[in-house]
Amino acid sequence: MQKVKPALLRGFDQEYLPHEQLQFNALVDLVRKNFERFGFLPIETPSAERKEVLTSKGGVEKEIYALSRLAAVTEEDEASAKGALRFDLTVPLARYVAMRERDLAFPFRRYQIQRVWRGETPQAKKGRFREFYQCDIDIINRDHLSYLAEAEIPSVIYSVFSEMAIGEFRIRINNRKLLKGILHGFSVPEDRASNVLRALDKIDREDPSTVREALEREGLAGAAAQALYSLIATKRTTRETLDTLRRFEARNEMLEQGLDELARVAAAIGEFGVPESAFCVDVGVVRGLDYYTGTIYETTLLAYPELGSICSGGRYDDLASYFTETKLPGVGISIGLTRLFSKLKEAGLLRPAPRTPAEVLVTTMDGRYQDRYLAMARSLRAAGINTEVYLETAKLKQQLSYADRKGFRVALIAGENEFARSTMQVKNLSAKTAQDYPVAEVVAAVKHILGMH
Amino acid sequence: MQKVKPALLRGFDQEYLPHEQLQFNALVDLVRKNFERFGFLPIETPSAERKEVLTSKGGVEKEIYALSRLAAVTEEDEASAKGALRFDLTVPLARYVAMRERDLAFPFRRYQIQRVWRGETPQAKKGRFREFYQCDIDIINRDHLSYLAEAEIPSVIYSVFSEMAIGEFRIRINNRKLLKGILHGFSVPEDRASNVLRALDKIDREDPSTVREALEREGLAGAAAQALYSLIATKRTTRETLDTLRRFEARNEMLEQGLDELARVAAAIGEFGVPESAFCVDVGVVRGLDYYTGTIYETTLLAYPELGSICSGGRYDDLASYFTETKLPGVGISIGLTRLFSKLKEAGLLRPAPRTPAEVLVTTMDGRYQDRYLAMARSLRAAGINTEVYLETAKLKQQLSYADRKGFRVALIAGENEFARSTMQVKNLSAKTAQDYPVAEVVAAVKHILGMH
Repeated sequence: MQKVKPALLRGFDQEYLPHEQLQFNALVDLVRKNFERFGFLPIETPSAERKEVLTSKGGVEKEIYALSRLAAVTEEDEASAKGALRFDLTVPLARYVAMRERDLAFPFRRYQIQRVWRGETPQAKKGRFREFYQCDIDIINRDHLSYLAEAEIPSVIYSVFSEMAIGEFRIRINNRKLLKGILHGFSVPEDRASNVLRALDKIDREDPSTVREALEREGLAGAAAQALYSLIATKRTTRETLDTLRRFEARNEMLEQGLDELARVAAAIGEFGVPESAFCVDVGVVRGLDYYTGTIYETTLLAYPELGSICSGGRYDDLASYFTETKLPGVGISIGLTRLFSKLKEAGLLRPAPRTPAEVLVTTMDGRYQDRYLAMARSLRAAGINTEVYLETAKLKQQLSYADRKGFRVALIAGENEFARSTMQVKNLSAKTAQDYPVAEVVAAVKHILGMH
Repeated sequence: MQKVKPALLRGFDQEYLPHEQLQFNALVDLVRKNFERFGFLPIETPSAERKEVLTSKGGVEKEIYALSRLAAVTEEDEASAKGALRFDLTVPLARYVAMRERDLAFPFRRYQIQRVWRGETPQAKKGRFREFYQCDIDIINRDHLSYLAEAEIPSVIYSVFSEMAIGEFRIRINNRKLLKGILHGFSVPEDRASNVLRALDKIDREDPSTVREALEREGLAGAAAQALYSLIATKRTTRETLDTLRRFEARNEMLEQGLDELARVAAAIGEFGVPESAFCVDVGVVRGLDYYTGTIYETTLLAYPELGSICSGGRYDDLASYFTETKLPGVGISIGLTRLFSKLKEAGLLRPAPRTPAEVLVTTMDGRYQDRYLAMARSLRAAGINTEVYLETAKLKQQLSYADRKGFRVALIAGENEFARSTMQVKNLSAKTAQDYPVAEVVAAVKHILGMH
């Protein structure tokens, strides 16, 4: 028979072997646990939304995957006619909150860990894929949102990445109003502001001259371009940055407001328990999205700046203006977990996880004792020990090689001799030791090896 | 501004409020924990596969969602040209095993809990949706698979649904070879067998006369149709069923083999710890798919037969024949969790879950003490207690009403008076009691209320 090649689609290819999946799941669980620690509530939204919902906030249409039936059908369903896959978790959140406003308690703190899809060119080197997990939290309130919500977000980020133990990291914060005020101070016209910000957003990745040229193309004179570049690109401590901005000459209302917000949020972040070593004010944080209106965040690993930001987000004034009259200010961040996982794996920063969730393999060297093997497995499971029974007919050596390959910590071995003495051999596969125990004491012996009480 | 209506696509509409999502997540965790208890390894596969992969095993093309970009692009990506969403977890598993054969330890025991998509007509009443979760386990070996694997599956099902505590259930098993042998005994020609099985599969849902007429249309004489109907439809105990089949007159090799397998598996299921009350042999279990070649399973809730099977599957001789020359026999089952959840909710069988993962709300009645509220929250979190701080400016009454609505178990309250005495009020929101504690003893008091040690 002609075989079909078992292959994956490009960009839809972050598929793991079971031991890698266990590492990935451990990361997801860690993120989830930390989000819950701060009182965020879980939601999941459907993979496909109405097209007009997805494009409401200006999703890039050529990056959105629409649905259609594989074979022609007489009657198209609604999904094929009107549906497309979500490209982020923010637009679905806006739709969700607008739809369910009356059923939610505000401030609404939600987390969401799901896949999203984007028809971009995949670049494995940059960790850019067409299907990937995002882990989002947002705090949304009606009408008003305290700056304290903006100050709390870094403490959640800090909690997540501290527990992940992937090395030193820094949460860098900035303020969109401040940036706008600076541009205003440089007399950048409103309609050029987005382009200028996009140019500044590339400071970490491009040559100074390239960035300056881009600024000049937007109408900044050579000296002004140089001064703006230097203001944004120079690395300073939080105090130096705030001092520099306070001395900035071309003052204006937007700048004052942004600076005031930034200083207040930066001061409060410490009260939320984030050590000074883990965050800084950095005017070089720009974020591409126009969407943000206040504090913006990026997070970088100090030893791996080339990974770029591993957790980003910001404050916005109105989440769901496309769907509802209710004003819903909010603040949120997103961790691109598939990308982070691929980069951590590459950098060797993933903590080893158990290679199997089951700890004990009951080997079966003699089919006549099948009932005893199965009874032992039941006793172990009843004691809270994940246990597998080797069900195929195979030599003991092959069964133990399976145990090694899958990563079991303990194997139980017994045949005619052992059962004649009512014992089983308990083999500690990590320590490579073995000892016989009366059948009635096997569960306790296994618990001891596994460090259970 | 013209608003977009915040609405969902038909069939892509199983979206929950946070407290329902917590209940759903608890079900997922329960299923996962039980699968891991038996040594199954997790995998996830991409949502989209190559079209030729999905159609290899004869997926129904008009039910498969293909991808395309929402806006025209100069260069189509591979996913838009060649990709479609998976409609089950079995075809991706076959592709996965064929692709990664050399990296997997066999027998390969995998579980997979992910969404699948089917372009069917949604029927909320039947719990049929276009996007839904499946929870699958499969045991796959190379060349040979012991009947013990078939006997183990019901013990996993038993473990899952016992812990779910959704009332009495019965795992009904049958054998495809036996069914084929019976049809052979009734002289049903090979090319009519599928149609006859499809007719018999409807016995629980349709009138006897409708089924008999369908059988007659397939060439069975009136008396034969009646005899076949009665053999399949009559409810018997396991022993009665096996006795009836042993007395069946039109014996043939297929029937003997199927009966032998069925009797052997049924006997072993008990050794795996499944009580007799929870399973039975039932020749009325047919399963539509031609795919199965040995034991087949269905699971029904005794008090809710109208829900149909909540967990089904079977044995197959060759998982991945479309992708590889390696013969990969296996056995597996699937729980349609979205449908099950919707039905359990309807029937009031869902256990109440906490309405928030956070247990404590630190209220903030006086902004001057912000640092103390935040410090208390940090202490509680450090003690393993999920804690939220109310960050908006609001009257205490409003904060407590938020606490009630979200379902917190404890609220902490303190202002000038309390802090002057270095105390905080600990309010037990379930018991509706409150007591002041020295700040240093608050964590212990909260732990006591939450029953933590």
